[in-house]
Amino acid sequence: MTASRETTSAGVWRLIDGELRCEEAVLIVEEPLEIIVDGEQYAVVMRTPGDDLPLAAGFCLAEGLIDSRDNLGSIQACELEDANQVSVVRTGDNLPPLRRVRLAIASSCGLCGRDMVDDIMKRLPEMRAGSPVAVADILALGRRLQEAQRHFRTTGGTHAAALFGSGGEMLSVAEDVGRHNALDKAIGRLLLSGQLSEANVAALSGRCSFEMVQKAARAGIPIVASVSAPTYMAVDLAARARVTLIGFVRRETLTVYVDHGRVAGLR
Amino acid sequence: MTASRETTSAGVWRLIDGELRCEEAVLIVEEPLEIIVDGEQYAVVMRTPGDDLPLAAGFCLAEGLIDSRDNLGSIQACELEDANQVSVVRTGDNLPPLRRVRLAIASSCGLCGRDMVDDIMKRLPEMRAGSPVAVADILALGRRLQEAQRHFRTTGGTHAAALFGSGGEMLSVAEDVGRHNALDKAIGRLLLSGQLSEANVAALSGRCSFEMVQKAARAGIPIVASVSAPTYMAVDLAARARVTLIGFVRRETLTVYVDHGRVAGLR
Repeated sequence: MTASRETTSAGVWRLIDGELRCEEAVLIVEEPLEIIVDGEQYAVVMRTPGDDLPLAAGFCLAEGLIDSRDNLGSIQACELEDANQVSVVRTGDNLPPLRRVRLAIASSCGLCGRDMVDDIMKRLPEMRAGSPVAVADILALGRRLQEAQRHFRTTGGTHAAALFGSGGEMLSVAEDVGRHNALDKAIGRLLLSGQLSEANVAALSGRCSFEMVQKAARAGIPIVASVSAPTYMAVDLAARARVTLIGFVRRETLTVYVDHGRVAGLR
Repeated sequence: MTASRETTSAGVWRLIDGELRCEEAVLIVEEPLEIIVDGEQYAVVMRTPGDDLPLAAGFCLAEGLIDSRDNLGSIQACELEDANQVSVVRTGDNLPPLRRVRLAIASSCGLCGRDMVDDIMKRLPEMRAGSPVAVADILALGRRLQEAQRHFRTTGGTHAAALFGSGGEMLSVAEDVGRHNALDKAIGRLLLSGQLSEANVAALSGRCSFEMVQKAARAGIPIVASVSAPTYMAVDLAARARVTLIGFVRRETLTVYVDHGRVAGLR
């Protein structure tokens, strides 16, 4: 399989007919893009590489920084390869000031995902050993997360996150319009109640971008199990932060992306 | 149906057995929450109300602003009802400085979704009349969006957005790890090629939060059709910005949340 800028591949263990088999999976790439407007860093968005100029143009239109193509004096990507930077210079009258700063970071020319992961690693506590879980237990936690999604049943518009202890007990569950918020809420509850060190598994209803792994790693939760796909950066961070990462947890299947010895029976 | 802080209800038209029927739908609520850290506005996150203290605590832990509960000197919500503001005061040594600003806005005590929609409305161009579409055409556009998702087929980790002209022709399509980016890319392509005024429908693979409606409204695209759920704030903004909003576009069903006379045969 050939990797492109948009996708890459990794060896995983997939549960097929009750057996974990070693296979290759395709992962979507997630990288930061720095958007410079009139010489100032305006935003950093996490995106799949490709179409960076349209992304920056559409972003500036949506943010109200420009009203039409006529306001785009110039738009260009940094010439260095993988620089992940687009510079927009505006032209015209009555352009709004650049009031809104999304993410102010120190950087030279562009950013790469590897640098971001390096930066995150510096601020992580050492990961606990955690308790190994059996494949059947992970499938059961996925079902219990689904049962707990009461707003999803009526609105179809929420994500959920639940934290489970070593004995499989549900310690905390939260639903929110945002994936990130649901996990922050579930973690925050245990932080406030002093139980956070009991959390062994974070089960997630949505896709697993690197921020979800980062949140689990910051909270010292050793295992992340999501019903959907992880990104490449999530897998990379999980490998380095010693987080066990499991994806596509469905009725009778799942995929282990990063193990760290916590999936019982895998080796 | 009783509305809570987390959900609310609205009258919609649902396609059942080939007929649009007037029904009541439950919508998930999306409201801003301002997180103040050590007296400074640190972030505004869009969230479903409820569990605001755990959300702010978990957010601060994930961001690396605190390392444990011991660093939480105090955490409290603004006492005004619906104020949407939590203030965190940190305590302890070696706390990181507040370098990262997510969204700097002018506000007094808290924010409400209505104020945000008011603010967005000020910066919107007048919406075009657009071309009405038949229900069968919308279902067909949903299928064509699905066919165009090539990275989704291999990775399961992307969202997609496609823009269609009045004759149903696909003008632009993009895939990305982020819902917002996919729409920004699809819109940005037409902005750069000078074809944006030809776009009549934006078809989206994921949930429709208010930002998706905002992006369509800023780009002058009259119809938004999503395969999944809209939030309450998305419906509110669509009603005010004269955007036609359709959700849950599946094989043989869909739900019209906001019409504005563009769904052929509805009245």
